[in-house]
Amino acid sequence: MDNDTISAIATANGIGSIAIIRISGDRALEIAKKLTHKKDFSPRYATLTTVHNKKNELIDESIVIYFKAPYSFTAEDVVEIQCHGGFIVAQSILKATLELGARLANAGEFSKRAFFNGRIDLSEAEAIAQLIEAKSEDAAKILAQQMKGSLKEYIEDIRDEIIHILAFSEVSIDYAEEDLPEDLVKQIESKLSDLKSSLESTLLASRAREGLMQGFKVAIVGKPNVGKSSLLNSLLNYNRAIVSEIAGTTRDTIEEQVKIGTHLIRIVDTAGIREANDEIERIGIERSLEAIQESDIVVALFDGSRVLDAEDEQILALVDKHTKNKHVIFVKNKIDLENKFSTEDINFDLELNSKDSVTSLIESLKNIMDVNNNSDEIMLISQRQIMAVQNTLNNIEESFYPLQDQELEIFSFHLNEAVKEMASITRPFENDEMLDKMFGSFCLGK
Amino acid sequence: MDNDTISAIATANGIGSIAIIRISGDRALEIAKKLTHKKDFSPRYATLTTVHNKKNELIDESIVIYFKAPYSFTAEDVVEIQCHGGFIVAQSILKATLELGARLANAGEFSKRAFFNGRIDLSEAEAIAQLIEAKSEDAAKILAQQMKGSLKEYIEDIRDEIIHILAFSEVSIDYAEEDLPEDLVKQIESKLSDLKSSLESTLLASRAREGLMQGFKVAIVGKPNVGKSSLLNSLLNYNRAIVSEIAGTTRDTIEEQVKIGTHLIRIVDTAGIREANDEIERIGIERSLEAIQESDIVVALFDGSRVLDAEDEQILALVDKHTKNKHVIFVKNKIDLENKFSTEDINFDLELNSKDSVTSLIESLKNIMDVNNNSDEIMLISQRQIMAVQNTLNNIEESFYPLQDQELEIFSFHLNEAVKEMASITRPFENDEMLDKMFGSFCLGK
Repeated sequence: MDNDTISAIATANGIGSIAIIRISGDRALEIAKKLTHKKDFSPRYATLTTVHNKKNELIDESIVIYFKAPYSFTAEDVVEIQCHGGFIVAQSILKATLELGARLANAGEFSKRAFFNGRIDLSEAEAIAQLIEAKSEDAAKILAQQMKGSLKEYIEDIRDEIIHILAFSEVSIDYAEEDLPEDLVKQIESKLSDLKSSLESTLLASRAREGLMQGFKVAIVGKPNVGKSSLLNSLLNYNRAIVSEIAGTTRDTIEEQVKIGTHLIRIVDTAGIREANDEIERIGIERSLEAIQESDIVVALFDGSRVLDAEDEQILALVDKHTKNKHVIFVKNKIDLENKFSTEDINFDLELNSKDSVTSLIESLKNIMDVNNNSDEIMLISQRQIMAVQNTLNNIEESFYPLQDQELEIFSFHLNEAVKEMASITRPFENDEMLDKMFGSFCLGK
Repeated sequence: MDNDTISAIATANGIGSIAIIRISGDRALEIAKKLTHKKDFSPRYATLTTVHNKKNELIDESIVIYFKAPYSFTAEDVVEIQCHGGFIVAQSILKATLELGARLANAGEFSKRAFFNGRIDLSEAEAIAQLIEAKSEDAAKILAQQMKGSLKEYIEDIRDEIIHILAFSEVSIDYAEEDLPEDLVKQIESKLSDLKSSLESTLLASRAREGLMQGFKVAIVGKPNVGKSSLLNSLLNYNRAIVSEIAGTTRDTIEEQVKIGTHLIRIVDTAGIREANDEIERIGIERSLEAIQESDIVVALFDGSRVLDAEDEQILALVDKHTKNKHVIFVKNKIDLENKFSTEDINFDLELNSKDSVTSLIESLKNIMDVNNNSDEIMLISQRQIMAVQNTLNNIEESFYPLQDQELEIFSFHLNEAVKEMASITRPFENDEMLDKMFGSFCLGK
C-alpha cells in the first residue's frame, strides 16, 4: 500500500457555489500550511483563509478543515479545502497541492485507503460508491442503511451460523466413535435448509430489483418525424431543474437524464442522428435496435394522423422481437389530428400539446417503475456480492449429500468454502486484482 | 428583506464524492438539530452524524458544520451539511430541510443577504459570482483579487478624490466673494484630467479583455462531411478530463466545453443537425451563420482532397462577410490525401490523423487567446460596472466648461453625479430592481 499523499477534487464537475479539494496522507497538513501561509490548523475546526499557489499568487479565499488521523474518512491525516466552485478555481488549487508534493488520487483511492485502514469493509465501500450514483430515493435509502452496516450484519450473521453448524458437526466428529446420530443429522439439515431459503430469497429479491439500483432506461423509438424529439422535450420540461445531457455510446444518440417521481431515469432519443447521408434509414433502424436492447422500458411512437406504413411496421416488428422481458408503451401521437391510423397494439393515446396527456404518460412510466419498491428487505447491490452469495448457496447445497452419507470431511470442506464466500463480501482473503477492479470503478475523489 | 431561513445545494449538480447543502437564517441551527437528532453543534466544528428525514428514515451519514452569526458568509446563522454526492442524496436532504421549515433559496440569495448584512459590497459579490463561472486561470486570478477588495479600493480612491475636489471648490465658493482664482481653476482642471485618464484607461482595458472574462467561443464551420465532427473530437480528446457538453441555444447545435492551455473555451459544432429532412442545407447555412456571429474565433474547414465547390464558396463568402472583428483560421483538412484544392485564404494545413498536426492547430488557438493577458491592471467585470464608470467619465467631462465659466453650481452638480455613479459600483443608493436583477443572475446556492 502506497503511503504517499493524494489529492483530488471531491465535488461534481460544473458550476456551483462551492467545490471541495481533499488531501489525504502524511503530508496533508504540511501542504495545507504552505497553501495558506498558516502556522497550524486546529483539528476539525473550519478556518477561513486565503489560498495561494507556489508563485504566491492569490487563488481564492477558502474554508480549510483538518481531520487528524485516525479520525478521518481514510484514517490518515486529511485536509479539506472548500473553495469557490466552477471549473477553474478548484483545478488551480488541486494543481497547487500537486506542486507542493501531493499526487493526483486514482479513482476510488480514498475509499481504498479507508478499507485498508479498517475504517470500512467492502460492503460499506460498495454502498457508498453506489449511493453517489443512486438513481432513486428508494435505492438511496437501501444504500444508506448498507453504508451504516446493515448488509454487513446480515452477512456476518449468516457466516456465524455456518461456522456454528460447522463447529457443531466437527465436535461430533471428534468425540463420536460411531456415525452421527440420525436426529443430529436432521437438526443440521434443518438449519442448513433455513439458511438456504434465506439466501435464495435474498438473491431473488436482489435480481428483481436490479432496475432500481442501476436506474431505469427508457428508449423512444418510431419512424422519422413522428414526434420523438417533441416527446423527449416534453418529458424533459416536466422537471427541467435536474435534467442533464449524457454523451451517448456513440455521438449519434443522445441520452438525457430526467427525474420522474423519485426515479432518475435515462431517456435515449434515437432521433439523434447528426450527419445527413444515404445511410440514414439503416442507421436509424440500427440505433433503434440498440436503444431497445439497452433499455428497461420502450416507448414506441406512431403517427395517428397517417395510415400505418412500412416504416411503422418495421418498428412494430423490431419492438415485437426484442422486448420479451421489457415493458412497452405503444403510443399513438397526434390524436388531436384526424385519425387515420389503426393497429391493435396501441395502449396509449397521446396529445403532445396537452399537459394532461403528457402527465398521464409520465404516470404510466411511474407505475411501471414503482412496482418493485420495498426498501425493508436485504439486497445485494453488486455482481460481486451476488456471485459470492450464489457460491455460498452452491456449497451449502453440495453439503447435503455428504452429510447424509456421513462423509463428514467433504461436508466440512463445502461449509468452509461457504464461510469463505460469505466473508469475501465484507473482507476478502488476499485478492489484489479484485480490489483494484472494484475501487477503480468508483468516481474520482472518492 | 426577508428574514426567513433559506436552504440550497451549494455544489455542482452531478456525480461527485461530496455535495453540500447550505442553510442560512434564524432557524438553521434548529433545523440541523432536528435532521441529526443532535442536542447542539459547537460553532465551526466539523461533526460526523447521521441525517434523517421527517419520517425518521436514515438519509445519509454527513459532516455538519455550524457557523454562528455573524461569523458566516451571510452574517446569519449558517449550517453546512456535507453529504455524499450524486443526484439523490443531496436532493433528499434539501427536501428534509424544507419539510422542517426552510425555504428554497432563490438564485444569488445567499450573496444578497451577505450584501445586505454588510459582509461584502457589490463589486465583491460580482467578483465571487464570476469567479465561479471563470473561463480561464487569468480571469480567476483577477477575480480572486477583486473578491478580496482590489476593485473596491480603486473605486473608493477615485470617489474620494472627486469628493476632495468637490469639497475644495465648495469651500472656495463659500468663502470667496469673487470668482475662483485662475490658478485654482487650473489646479482643479489638472486633477480632473488625471482622473479622466485613469478612468479612460480602465474602460479601454476592460473592454479589450471581455473575451477573457466571458470565455472564448470557437465555431467550426464547413460543408457537410468535411471533417467538422472529427476535428471537434480531436480537440475534445486533447483534454478529455474536463470536457462537458452544453445544451445549445437550439437542440440542433452542440456546444462542447474544453480546456485549452489555461482557457476554458466553448466549441460550437455546426454539424449538430439531428433530423433528416429537405431543409438540411438551408438549416446548415443558418446554423453556420449563427455560430460565426456568436463566436470570437472561427475555424473554417475545407476538404484538401477535392476541388473547391459551390458549397465551399458559400462558406468562404459567409466567413468573409461576418468576421470583421474576429480571428479566423482557414484550415485545409485531409492534406494527407492527394491535393486538389486551391484557395489563397488557407493559413493552416491539417492532418487529423497526426497528433502533431492537431497540437499545432491548438497552439494557434492558444496564441490568439493569450494576446491580451495581463492580470495586474484594474478591470471592470460587468456591464453594470462599465456603465457606471462611463457615466462618471461623462459627468467629469461635462464639469470642465462650467468650471471655466465659473458656473460653480452646475460644476458641483456634475461632480456629485460622478460621486454617486462611482459609489454605485460598490454600494448603490436605493435601487431594488437593479439588485434583484444582479443577484438573480448568480447561480443557485450562492
